[in-house]
Amino acid sequence: MPFAKLTSEHIDTLRTIFDPARVHVGEAIGEDYSHDELAYGRFYPDVLVEPISTEEVSQLLRFSYEHNIPVVPRGMGTGLCGGAVALHGGIMLSMARMNRILEIDQENRMAVVEPGVILLEFQKTVEELGLFYPPDPGEKTATLGGNVMTNAGGMRAVRYGVTRDYVLGMEAVLPGGEIIHLGGKVLKNSSGYSLKDLLIGSEGTLAVVTKLILKLIPRPHRQVSLLVPFPDLDQAIDAVPRIMGAGIIPTAIEFLQRELIEASERYLGKPFPDASAPAYLLLAFHGSDELIDLYHQAAHLCLDAGAFDVFIADTQERQEMIWEARGAFLEALKGMSEIDEVDVVVPPAKIAGFIKFTRNIAQDLNVRILSFGHAGDGNVHVYVLRDGRPQDEWRVLLEEAMERMYLEARNLQGQVSGEHGIGFAKIPYLKDSLGEAELRLLRGIKQVFDPKGLLNPSKVVG
Amino acid sequence: MPFAKLTSEHIDTLRTIFDPARVHVGEAIGEDYSHDELAYGRFYPDVLVEPISTEEVSQLLRFSYEHNIPVVPRGMGTGLCGGAVALHGGIMLSMARMNRILEIDQENRMAVVEPGVILLEFQKTVEELGLFYPPDPGEKTATLGGNVMTNAGGMRAVRYGVTRDYVLGMEAVLPGGEIIHLGGKVLKNSSGYSLKDLLIGSEGTLAVVTKLILKLIPRPHRQVSLLVPFPDLDQAIDAVPRIMGAGIIPTAIEFLQRELIEASERYLGKPFPDASAPAYLLLAFHGSDELIDLYHQAAHLCLDAGAFDVFIADTQERQEMIWEARGAFLEALKGMSEIDEVDVVVPPAKIAGFIKFTRNIAQDLNVRILSFGHAGDGNVHVYVLRDGRPQDEWRVLLEEAMERMYLEARNLQGQVSGEHGIGFAKIPYLKDSLGEAELRLLRGIKQVFDPKGLLNPSKVVG
Repeated sequence: MPFAKLTSEHIDTLRTIFDPARVHVGEAIGEDYSHDELAYGRFYPDVLVEPISTEEVSQLLRFSYEHNIPVVPRGMGTGLCGGAVALHGGIMLSMARMNRILEIDQENRMAVVEPGVILLEFQKTVEELGLFYPPDPGEKTATLGGNVMTNAGGMRAVRYGVTRDYVLGMEAVLPGGEIIHLGGKVLKNSSGYSLKDLLIGSEGTLAVVTKLILKLIPRPHRQVSLLVPFPDLDQAIDAVPRIMGAGIIPTAIEFLQRELIEASERYLGKPFPDASAPAYLLLAFHGSDELIDLYHQAAHLCLDAGAFDVFIADTQERQEMIWEARGAFLEALKGMSEIDEVDVVVPPAKIAGFIKFTRNIAQDLNVRILSFGHAGDGNVHVYVLRDGRPQDEWRVLLEEAMERMYLEARNLQGQVSGEHGIGFAKIPYLKDSLGEAELRLLRGIKQVFDPKGLLNPSKVVG
Repeated sequence: MPFAKLTSEHIDTLRTIFDPARVHVGEAIGEDYSHDELAYGRFYPDVLVEPISTEEVSQLLRFSYEHNIPVVPRGMGTGLCGGAVALHGGIMLSMARMNRILEIDQENRMAVVEPGVILLEFQKTVEELGLFYPPDPGEKTATLGGNVMTNAGGMRAVRYGVTRDYVLGMEAVLPGGEIIHLGGKVLKNSSGYSLKDLLIGSEGTLAVVTKLILKLIPRPHRQVSLLVPFPDLDQAIDAVPRIMGAGIIPTAIEFLQRELIEASERYLGKPFPDASAPAYLLLAFHGSDELIDLYHQAAHLCLDAGAFDVFIADTQERQEMIWEARGAFLEALKGMSEIDEVDVVVPPAKIAGFIKFTRNIAQDLNVRILSFGHAGDGNVHVYVLRDGRPQDEWRVLLEEAMERMYLEARNLQGQVSGEHGIGFAKIPYLKDSLGEAELRLLRGIKQVFDPKGLLNPSKVVG
């Protein structure tokens, strides 16, 4: 069924559901809302609305259902696969104003939040109360709702797991406007199919999340980071299984390469603490005093594995300096060139092999390919740089590079996306990686939740 | 559509799919296969088959689909809600012979197993290799497939999470016979809706799992248990938030009451190490040497909270003695009387209140109600004892007690089942706890996977 085109009557109705100051049309819709953080063209919604309550979201979804108008939910638009882009126009539902932390339940160590709360703000708030929210995706200005909708991973997944592991319950609104409640303030649950886990990672295609119950843990007492220079990237990554194999599970193990460190220095206008090596491992340890033994052990293992040295950062300032550089990689890359990325995840022991493979492609196709990522959990972010190539050449080259990388990831028993999701940009690769039956199940589930196909259309399942 | 009745022709066909020695009919089907571990009558399948390969499972599900015959998958039948019982006759698919550990991948710290592997055997095998599989449901003779299908929790969930957190991938067969592959040897995954997480906890109603990829962690170096006697159960449970609130997360925190300890002593024929108190907390700490500080701290907090004493068990023998008694509670209860149970989960801070509530019901209805469970994660197992009452009286009494307890759990924002699942016995309570929309979604999903409703019919979604 084709979508209805939004009319001025529709807009008038929206202005009865929402305060008209929160209904924007035409020029009043900022350019930001036409794309996310990667460049895949510009797509404007016909109208942008900003709900402030579940009831408003419910009314909006009832309205859109009755009038057959597509709805695209959006957090802060920090995604990398076009998940929050209005490909078919229609209504964009910005969840950014539903940004209240409703409750920090100290007794149960849980938080109840609206989906528009910013990750960074939430982390700070709970840490001030002696609590800790472990998921730590690189993009700190994302919303918690967006994190949940992509099952965001981040740096600390090695030790603490991903967003999914911290979502205990949610309130959501279905296409048509019904409000559902899934899970709750409970740490275990075997009460029917886990709809909550189905919504996590569904990228706003099944329901619009309006409330989240999140699990917290006690704030670790101390944090220490190790910056470990290596003669080359392969050696750096090869050290990781030695550390993990010794039973040491750091909070984070990132790999850094010189070219990206330098780009980050330029972007931030700040020097990186070390310039001696072409590649580094960056390890973080959180916890009580026992971590001291562990990081010494990890340091020795790195030296055995060929590290030049081990720099121990135990002051907050020094650690922030290093992690800020790591955190700026994506922005630095975007400053260097138009880019496209893969975010594949492979078995952790295969990551060095995968990085070598991308270097071979770069040589073979004569294109710059840079990568950074999570050496401890097998999730690597690989960027292909356009570097001023004409559009036609770039498209052909990019497609070739992408196809080879996704094929290699499949050969290594990897998956299309470790943490960024599918959006619309990765649908072809997801389809390549799934069988007929899996695809039929995904589409069947979409149909159960959204029989008219109005919610975030042409995403994830196509 | 009514199910077809199994004919001798059908059986002949099954004998061409399977070695006839693995196709059992009539008297050859043991009484064990007519029930699980709680008494809800006896239901015999028409035929019991024992596949040894995915291909056989696939052929069987194709056959049953073509002939409209219900299929009930079963592990070791240790469930408590009738999930593995053939309510409508038809085919019982025992997965017990698909019990090979296919691979222990030391490098990636993952295991690939068939679903019929016994939990205890798997735990032992990986521990001998210096690895650790944290999920630890009380029933150690259950299969891993059964654990996954109920999202089994267990004692160590406080610290390590539940079965869901350790399932990285699976192979499964759909009604109709198609084989699907979900997830993989990856620690992060945001590649479309998580069908894997939908199958976890689906109690064999959506697909038959034929292979599992499980996450392992390094084996903790040491284990220490604390047995802490308290003047009464309320005080024991009230100590738990003090421990957790201090940022101490033990591996397990169980509560024990004297009446069950004595029943367990009788059942095992062995004395419990202490007889001084009416109630106890039992705490376990796993990890490196840092745990020593933590358990001392926990011990002091318990004494502050009114504990008589703290017994530290740091030898394996002594710890096994205590945990064996805890592990025998269910069997001991079954030896005392016919029983029925609730396995609700409430916010952890509400658990003491819930236990008090059950004591009040016991008094009010003049019935014995005993409980044990996971004081750290809010999951409590409450047993109502028939104690020789006539059947009519027992049914009325039980229903009254059950309804009151489930209502109270809902009032406390709890859920119907923390870890035992729904099976058929808890369907009414699940329905009470869900809204119209949630129920419609569950049924819609069942329909997507199993359009003919042949797989484990009348379970979970009714």
